[in-house]
Amino acid sequence: MSSAGFGMGLSRRGMLGVGAGVAAVLAAPGAVSSAVAQAQPAGDRMLQVRNATVQINYAGVRFLIDPMLADQGAYPGFPGSAMSHLRNPLVPLPMPASAVMDVDAVIVTHTHLDHWDEAAQRALPKAMPIFAQNETDAEKIRGQGFTEVRVLDASTQFRGVSLARTGGHHGRDEILKAIPILDPVCGVVLSKPGHKTVYLAGDTVWNDEVSGAITQHRPDIIILNAGYAQNIDLGPILMGPQEILTVSKAAPQARLIATHMEAVNHCILSRADLKVFAEREGFASKLDIPGDGEWVAL
Amino acid sequence: MSSAGFGMGLSRRGMLGVGAGVAAVLAAPGAVSSAVAQAQPAGDRMLQVRNATVQINYAGVRFLIDPMLADQGAYPGFPGSAMSHLRNPLVPLPMPASAVMDVDAVIVTHTHLDHWDEAAQRALPKAMPIFAQNETDAEKIRGQGFTEVRVLDASTQFRGVSLARTGGHHGRDEILKAIPILDPVCGVVLSKPGHKTVYLAGDTVWNDEVSGAITQHRPDIIILNAGYAQNIDLGPILMGPQEILTVSKAAPQARLIATHMEAVNHCILSRADLKVFAEREGFASKLDIPGDGEWVAL
Repeated sequence: MSSAGFGMGLSRRGMLGVGAGVAAVLAAPGAVSSAVAQAQPAGDRMLQVRNATVQINYAGVRFLIDPMLADQGAYPGFPGSAMSHLRNPLVPLPMPASAVMDVDAVIVTHTHLDHWDEAAQRALPKAMPIFAQNETDAEKIRGQGFTEVRVLDASTQFRGVSLARTGGHHGRDEILKAIPILDPVCGVVLSKPGHKTVYLAGDTVWNDEVSGAITQHRPDIIILNAGYAQNIDLGPILMGPQEILTVSKAAPQARLIATHMEAVNHCILSRADLKVFAEREGFASKLDIPGDGEWVAL
Repeated sequence: MSSAGFGMGLSRRGMLGVGAGVAAVLAAPGAVSSAVAQAQPAGDRMLQVRNATVQINYAGVRFLIDPMLADQGAYPGFPGSAMSHLRNPLVPLPMPASAVMDVDAVIVTHTHLDHWDEAAQRALPKAMPIFAQNETDAEKIRGQGFTEVRVLDASTQFRGVSLARTGGHHGRDEILKAIPILDPVCGVVLSKPGHKTVYLAGDTVWNDEVSGAITQHRPDIIILNAGYAQNIDLGPILMGPQEILTVSKAAPQARLIATHMEAVNHCILSRADLKVFAEREGFASKLDIPGDGEWVAL
């Protein structure tokens, strides 16, 4: 039994690499994905920025989802959650904030720090159209100086794109009872005739609302917040491997894209481990796990 | 609900600090404990080095436990475990390795990388007395060039100090069945008439062997590997808050010292969160959580 054997045993697979002597605690962003510089795909596409911050270019309209724009290490870890001794974000933005913000509208699925931070509130133009999940969040965002804040509903339209709000829950019932501030959260379905239907599930675990959104909207693509964030006392507040597998089975024709990984303290699932799990369970070919700064064609 | 409220909600307490603009992902080692430089206590004492690496100065004999001496970030994270995208160790040694190794003997509770690493194998003098948990580990360590390797048993003696091997298990039965390489592991009880009895439990969850060791040895002090290390699929492989509370109740007269925290990727429990938990559960006054580089009087 070599000392490397501990790692092998933990995962029932080999080590990721040798790495001895490399004095970097954080793996390179996007290490799992191709290291080759990637051209921006034509047509509808998603850019994994960092954490749950993604750009979606859909039918020629550029949406920014859940901007967290702070410098690496700007905030303390979330107390009471896994690895709260680490500071957030764990990694830098992979591009200038100005490029992240070069969009037509912003969708804020909820206003937790890792989805709508002070840096984003400071940096975004106050006239940027912003979609919030409900009137409470909209009022909050207006109070931060934004003048074009709208509430998502089942039939919101923006420049020809349909944006349908979906529900979700940021943990199981017992954790929401203990920590009510976790909810509410939302997701959104983007659609337009002639384009694939894209369901961004948001900060939710698997539940009837996710299942219902899949049944109702029959998405071609599902974007999942897959970091398996953990509360120390009460367990997961985001989908982990098993629930991602459940989504895959519930939407056998859909492609999945994993986001909200490797960027904040409590998201314990690595891209490499999700990839291994998906290979073991036979759904790796329908799952994209983009590194920060990488585009995925939709 | 401010964005800071997410953190507050997660833990039902306030944020640890403000910290905006501080671009450091890792909190300062020992941040929970007093920032005042601490004199080395007289008498029996323990030095928290880093991870499970501790020095115990007992009845004038200096023991080094579970040396992991690599530079920060030298090894990839353990695949299949929490936060495997982080590189180990997460933090540097708080003192020169030469000072860590200035001891009379080494005790290796088991040979996983985070307890007995290549850096320690290279740096330690080959004639250093080393105690191993069993003949398998002893042979392995002899194979690494060490000439004075002994196997711990129920009545080992070293320079007048009794060293009694104790059992333990590095996870519940189902995880050991899935990942047999996790076991075996051991703990050790240090005793000598006129000195407090010190039980170092090692990499174990709460079980009959820990309970039995407490009943048999009636330790005054219990050193616990408290990092709550997690396998992604199968859960904890070290004690977490609830099991530490169980130990506290099983040994109401004993003081507890928490180690194996904040230094390797899969240990998800922070010192700050353990402190808050112990305060909430009423045993904080009997629990020490030394930062790296800090001494605790035994």
